[in-house]
Amino acid sequence: MAQVSIGDSEFDRDTAVTRREEGVYDAELSAGWTIIQAVNGGYLLALIGRALGDALPHSDPFSVSAHYVTASRPGPAVIRTQTVRSGRTLSTGQASLFQYAEDGTEVERIRVLASYGDLDALSDDVRTTAKPPSIPPIEHCLGSDDGPAPIPGSSAITDRLMLKLDPATCGWAVGAPSGKGEMRAWFGLSDGRDADPLSLLLTVDALPPTAFELGLKGWVPTVELTTHIRCRPAPGPLRVSIVTRNLAGGFLEEDAEVWDSADRLVAQSRQLALVPRG
Amino acid sequence: MAQVSIGDSEFDRDTAVTRREEGVYDAELSAGWTIIQAVNGGYLLALIGRALGDALPHSDPFSVSAHYVTASRPGPAVIRTQTVRSGRTLSTGQASLFQYAEDGTEVERIRVLASYGDLDALSDDVRTTAKPPSIPPIEHCLGSDDGPAPIPGSSAITDRLMLKLDPATCGWAVGAPSGKGEMRAWFGLSDGRDADPLSLLLTVDALPPTAFELGLKGWVPTVELTTHIRCRPAPGPLRVSIVTRNLAGGFLEEDAEVWDSADRLVAQSRQLALVPRG
Repeated sequence: MAQVSIGDSEFDRDTAVTRREEGVYDAELSAGWTIIQAVNGGYLLALIGRALGDALPHSDPFSVSAHYVTASRPGPAVIRTQTVRSGRTLSTGQASLFQYAEDGTEVERIRVLASYGDLDALSDDVRTTAKPPSIPPIEHCLGSDDGPAPIPGSSAITDRLMLKLDPATCGWAVGAPSGKGEMRAWFGLSDGRDADPLSLLLTVDALPPTAFELGLKGWVPTVELTTHIRCRPAPGPLRVSIVTRNLAGGFLEEDAEVWDSADRLVAQSRQLALVPRG
Repeated sequence: MAQVSIGDSEFDRDTAVTRREEGVYDAELSAGWTIIQAVNGGYLLALIGRALGDALPHSDPFSVSAHYVTASRPGPAVIRTQTVRSGRTLSTGQASLFQYAEDGTEVERIRVLASYGDLDALSDDVRTTAKPPSIPPIEHCLGSDDGPAPIPGSSAITDRLMLKLDPATCGWAVGAPSGKGEMRAWFGLSDGRDADPLSLLLTVDALPPTAFELGLKGWVPTVELTTHIRCRPAPGPLRVSIVTRNLAGGFLEEDAEVWDSADRLVAQSRQLALVPRG
C-alpha cells in the first residue's frame, strides 16, 4: 500500500473547504465517495467537520450530531457555520451543508450540532471495560477485489477505502446473511493516509449496513448520526464493529465502535436509520 | 400510588409552554426538577420536546440531539424553534432554550436538533435481539425513602420520581461502589402519570450517574445527549438500564435503554459527559 501523509491525500483534497467569508465555506462534493449515486453520509460529515474545525476556536470534533435532511449529490456545496459558544475546554458550533437547486436557491442537505475541543489536552486516564472486536487477521478478511464481491454495485467509494470484512459478517454478499445485525471490518484509506479525527467521521458510516446481514436489501437512509471522538487515533489500520440490536417499526439503530492499532477505543457512534423496503 | 392522567400531572404542568408567536414559546423552569441546584437535563429536553411537537407538523420525537451550552436555573425561559424540513414521514426541527441575564439579554442553555414523526404510524414489525435488563422485583429495589438513602442530597426531583434502584447498582450510596459502570432502576412519575414520548426524554437522564458506581463523586455535566424514541410506551412502570463502557481522557459515555411493561424497547439514548473531578 502506498503511504501518503495527512494533508496530502484523496481524502484531504476531497474534504477541502474554501472560506468565502467568516463562517461560510465553499466545497465540492466529490463523486469519488458515492455509493451507487448517493454521496456517503460520513464523507459529508468529514467535510462539515473540517469547516467547523476552522470556524471554531477548537479544532477537534468531540461530539458531532447530524440530522440528514435531503440526499446530497456530487457537485458544489456551501457550508454555513455558526459559533454557538466558545468555552475554555469545549466550543459548541452548528453547521448546515447546502447544495443548489436549478434556480440557484440553496437546498439544505444536512444539519449538524457539534462540540469541539483539543484531543491532545485530554488526560491519560483510561478505565474502560470495552474490548476491541474480534476480527480475523486482515489477510483472512474480504475486500471488494475478493470475489465473490462482498461489496457489489458500482460504488466509487470502494476504490478509496481499504475495507476488509470479517468473513463471518459477509454472508449477505453470497445470498446467505447470518441473521445477526453485525458487521465487522478492518478499515483504512486506499492511499495509506493515516486516520485522524476527521477521517473517523467517515469511518463510522463507511461499512455496508448491518441490515444486509439481517437479510434486507436496498438503501438504508440515515435519519440521525451522532459520533463521539474519544481519542486521537494511532497510525495503522482501524477495526470497526457495527451492531444493530433493535429493528422495529421500520427503523433500526447502528452502533459503531472504532478501535486503533494501539487498542484504544477512538470513536463511538450511533445512527437511527430507515429499514429498507426491499 | 395515586394515578393521574397524561395531561393533568406535575410533569405536564411543569413542561407547559405558551406560544408567544409562531415558533416561539415561553416556559417556566420549575424548581421541582432540580438535582441540588441544577435543573435536570432530561426535564429540559422534555420541555423543548413539547415546544417542537407543537411547532412541527409531526408531534412525536423520534430522534432528539441536544448539546448543553450553559447550566440552567429555575425561572423563566424562552424556547425558539425553527422548522428545518417538513416531510411526509419525518420532519426536522431545531430549538434553543434561553434564559435571561440580569440586563434581560437572552443566554442560551441548550441547543437541539430533532426529527419528529408519528409513532402510531409505525409498522408492527419487531426483530430485536435486545433483551430487557434483569432487575429484581420493584419491592426489592431501593428508593430515596429507603435508608441508607440511595439518593443523597436535597434534590427536589426525588420527590417527583418513582425511582427504585437495583440493589446491585446501589453500592455507591453506602460507600461501596461496585466498580462497574452500570445503573439499573424501575422508573415512574410519583403521581402515577403514565409514560409517553415526552416523559421518556426525562427518563433517559433521570438516574444517578454511572460514574458513582465507578467510585467517582460529584457533578457529571452532559456535553451531548441523543435520544431515540422507538415505540410509544405501554402504561406501567419502566425499566431503565444505563451502561458506561469507556471512561477515558476525562470523558465518559452513558448508554441508556428504557423498556416498557410490554417488554418493548421504547427508548435508546447515549450521552457524552465530563468525568467528575471530585
